[in-house]
Amino acid sequence: MLTVNAYAAASATAPLEPVTITRRDVGPKDVLIDIKYAGVCHSDIHTVREDWGPVRHPLVVGHEIVGIVAEVGSEVTKHAVGDRVGVGCLVNSCRTCENCLDGEEQYCLNGNVGTYGSVDRDGSITQGGYSTHVVVDEDFVLRVPESLDFAAAAPLLCAGITTYSPLRHWNAGPGKKVAVVGMGGLGHMAIKLAHAMGAEVTVLSRTLSKKDDGLRLGADHYYATEDPETFPALANGFDLIVNTVSAPIDLDAHLKLLRRNGTMVNVGAPAEPLPLRVFSLFGNRRSFAGSGIGGIRETQEMLDFCAEHGILPETELIEASQINDAWKRVLDSDVRYRFVIDAATFA
Amino acid sequence: MLTVNAYAAASATAPLEPVTITRRDVGPKDVLIDIKYAGVCHSDIHTVREDWGPVRHPLVVGHEIVGIVAEVGSEVTKHAVGDRVGVGCLVNSCRTCENCLDGEEQYCLNGNVGTYGSVDRDGSITQGGYSTHVVVDEDFVLRVPESLDFAAAAPLLCAGITTYSPLRHWNAGPGKKVAVVGMGGLGHMAIKLAHAMGAEVTVLSRTLSKKDDGLRLGADHYYATEDPETFPALANGFDLIVNTVSAPIDLDAHLKLLRRNGTMVNVGAPAEPLPLRVFSLFGNRRSFAGSGIGGIRETQEMLDFCAEHGILPETELIEASQINDAWKRVLDSDVRYRFVIDAATFA
Repeated sequence: MLTVNAYAAASATAPLEPVTITRRDVGPKDVLIDIKYAGVCHSDIHTVREDWGPVRHPLVVGHEIVGIVAEVGSEVTKHAVGDRVGVGCLVNSCRTCENCLDGEEQYCLNGNVGTYGSVDRDGSITQGGYSTHVVVDEDFVLRVPESLDFAAAAPLLCAGITTYSPLRHWNAGPGKKVAVVGMGGLGHMAIKLAHAMGAEVTVLSRTLSKKDDGLRLGADHYYATEDPETFPALANGFDLIVNTVSAPIDLDAHLKLLRRNGTMVNVGAPAEPLPLRVFSLFGNRRSFAGSGIGGIRETQEMLDFCAEHGILPETELIEASQINDAWKRVLDSDVRYRFVIDAATFA
Repeated sequence: MLTVNAYAAASATAPLEPVTITRRDVGPKDVLIDIKYAGVCHSDIHTVREDWGPVRHPLVVGHEIVGIVAEVGSEVTKHAVGDRVGVGCLVNSCRTCENCLDGEEQYCLNGNVGTYGSVDRDGSITQGGYSTHVVVDEDFVLRVPESLDFAAAAPLLCAGITTYSPLRHWNAGPGKKVAVVGMGGLGHMAIKLAHAMGAEVTVLSRTLSKKDDGLRLGADHYYATEDPETFPALANGFDLIVNTVSAPIDLDAHLKLLRRNGTMVNVGAPAEPLPLRVFSLFGNRRSFAGSGIGGIRETQEMLDFCAEHGILPETELIEASQINDAWKRVLDSDVRYRFVIDAATFA
């Protein structure tokens, strides 16, 4: 076992501080990754703060990981020492259910193994990327194309795939009108990706405060949802709405913006039930859907797509000692648009 | 103008009784229909009782109409005197919006003209099928195939198309597992249609009281939702769930029965907002959708499909004087499965 440096909180209310954790020995199919950068996802905070249920502290979070392969097991064929690689939200799955067999491990029917906070095969609890090293089965390790800036690429592993997958599934592309609700870590990626796919992109944000950024990132239109004229003006207009907001929004008002056969898909995850009027769905045969990250094959496709189109998150690089401040700023929506931790500072 | 006999209520709480109403003169594109049978839809009751909002009484309801063409306008080409025809929930639409141009007049963006309770082109309020005659634009008149029993065919015009359309849209067919929630007027048609399309059909009803009927109508499986073992047993199992129940149901529990990319579509119309946890949609990338009746082209397709497959609603024929009792029995779910009024008894 390898003892490595990491950051974690002692309880749901404690600040994050340096800890040491152990990583398993590199098995025949494992890859040891020397972590270079780890993105800060809002889910990290929800999890540690126990917004989504109790966890065993200290828990090392972080599921937007990039690094260099430092060692490979005897049977590893997909990666070699020195490779630039990434790890996202998943480190394993059952590999036998219909969803795994279709390469959609994010929907593993037997419960996939998340990068942190999941029960691993050996019964231990998985620990994430706010750390110097991680050991992961090679099948859940992604290749990070050389052309992508390494630090900026980290958030692609969650924010990127979480928005890429529904945009692809619901065929965002030329001739399609796509709205992105919210312009945070997920929203700003949804804009870039939908634009690169050729869709006409509209941002729906509470205010116009980020309008200049939105248009710079690729949006064609930008509306404030606090403006009462926005909803009537956009009625029946969108083929797809990607809602990246985790706070409750008025579902009925947003659903009425969908044209016939349109879908609003939530990637934001409000914990509380939201009220929905079925009548909002009858008109135009509308759908309200959910989408969770993406499978390994699609995550690789997304990384390659981003390399091809020169797409990267907008990031702010921080040191480990700044994590607690950064988390505060995430909660205050005071980040444009993703923090990335220099993993060298965990040492 | 033609003065005709009908049944209507004087107020939201009054019983239905005989009235006379006028029908417009037959215009160049109009068809005068000698109504033979009119189905009793739960919507008729909701409308008259003002569950869905105020209406102008007396209002003649009924949107499951079959009859014989008695007169045609000078420019009518689609129908001839003596033809067996039907009229469903729509008698007109704007014909210019993208949905009308695509033949999906039920989703007319400028507001279609319903068979009853809508503002007609001339400013009058449309009056429905609990009557001896009706005048309708030929484009909204359907052909009723000779092989279909005339009285039993009436409910196809609403209950039939309302379930046929989502089954077709979401590709019910061989290899697909379809659940039908509720076994009333809509539900019993959904079973027959999904079975005829080749899908594997499961009924989810509150109790097992209608199980024998369900299996006779074509269901492969039948489960009681009041049985706590039903939901775990059926988790992740269905490609499509058609919810025909107008009362609120536990959306989250039902959504978890969908396999990957599955859809639960509501054709039942609860007036109140329903609570929905977005987390129920994340797993398996599930969708919750709505569907409203169908367009004219698809309604004709449905009638022809029913003729081809020998599908008819299970009906109980009544006279006009029995309508008030019949409405009570509909509210008590004491009908298997649709009342049809003999229009001769309006005279």
